[in-house]
Amino acid sequence: MVPDVDGEPKAAIMRATYRALCRHGYADLTMQDIADEAPVSKGTLHYHYDSKRGLFEAFQRYISRRFFGRLRAADDPDAAPPARLAAILDAALSPPDRDDVQDLQRALLELKAQAPHEPQIRAHVDEADAELRDLLADVIAAGVESGDFRADADPARTARFIVTVLAGNQARQVSVGQAPETTRALLRTHVEDRLRPEAEE
Amino acid sequence: MVPDVDGEPKAAIMRATYRALCRHGYADLTMQDIADEAPVSKGTLHYHYDSKRGLFEAFQRYISRRFFGRLRAADDPDAAPPARLAAILDAALSPPDRDDVQDLQRALLELKAQAPHEPQIRAHVDEADAELRDLLADVIAAGVESGDFRADADPARTARFIVTVLAGNQARQVSVGQAPETTRALLRTHVEDRLRPEAEE
Repeated sequence: MVPDVDGEPKAAIMRATYRALCRHGYADLTMQDIADEAPVSKGTLHYHYDSKRGLFEAFQRYISRRFFGRLRAADDPDAAPPARLAAILDAALSPPDRDDVQDLQRALLELKAQAPHEPQIRAHVDEADAELRDLLADVIAAGVESGDFRADADPARTARFIVTVLAGNQARQVSVGQAPETTRALLRTHVEDRLRPEAEE
Repeated sequence: MVPDVDGEPKAAIMRATYRALCRHGYADLTMQDIADEAPVSKGTLHYHYDSKRGLFEAFQRYISRRFFGRLRAADDPDAAPPARLAAILDAALSPPDRDDVQDLQRALLELKAQAPHEPQIRAHVDEADAELRDLLADVIAAGVESGDFRADADPARTARFIVTVLAGNQARQVSVGQAPETTRALLRTHVEDRLRPEAEE
């Protein structure tokens, strides 16, 4: 089920891009590698996306929509803010149970490394980053409002800190095999506990 | 001054590798690109390093030694543990003032992304990671011992959290241009303040 791309050929191409990225990484990936994974011809691939760059832009949007879809599905806006924050962080740090998750994380890390030289990649990364920070800051602000989080917590700063930790999690998952569960436990100790009013001086 | 490689040709090659990496990134880098930056011939390059892989292994060690050299130079073992931790984090988050620092961070991020498929890169990343965690954990343990940090602080866990934040800093410096000073301020709020005994419940 891929509800977030319009039309079946594009959905099939996104799934093929996913598989090709996991298999080959980003740096050496060719349109042919993607066509090899797709139930469509290389001609159809080029009909929909005229360049590897255009296809990756679409792929970044596809992956982001899936990621935010998982986060929003995990978030119950009627729950108490601490439970909401915990659920969102759990979703962010519990990638779908697939063998190729580490390969995908690696490919996404490679893609991010291109941001300084690829304005379209950078624009998309900025956009996804702002969306995640806003989602987290809103929940933290709701918790300050409700008295569940300490009154002097700064939602925007704390949200930025959390996304920095999530970026570190992705990098370390790839580079040293740090388990997302480890990051989750560390984040709980250092951020969620710190937001608790009892921790106030 | 490059005290950490043996002999002048190797030092010159390391500096050339640095420049070539900043210019071209890791993925497409060739031995010829490095030779183009070096005051030595491609023949001399191949005499010292028989493959791109061997050269990058040496380069990883070179960069690590410079990094830890800066950290250890900033660390005064006679200072109080909170000042020591602050000085080490400042050094880790204040890269040398050079125009090409972001390019180097980008190349190092690309290199890390190769770790899952390159055992030698992975081995080196693991080693540098353990060295950094040990350095931080020792200072935190000293602070717990001296009463400067809260008694229930877990040095190994806190050290792991800090290196996760530092990895996130590197990734975000590259992908969204987050300034190291921003990470530094966030880390101070969320880690150093939390280690203070007054924050104890």
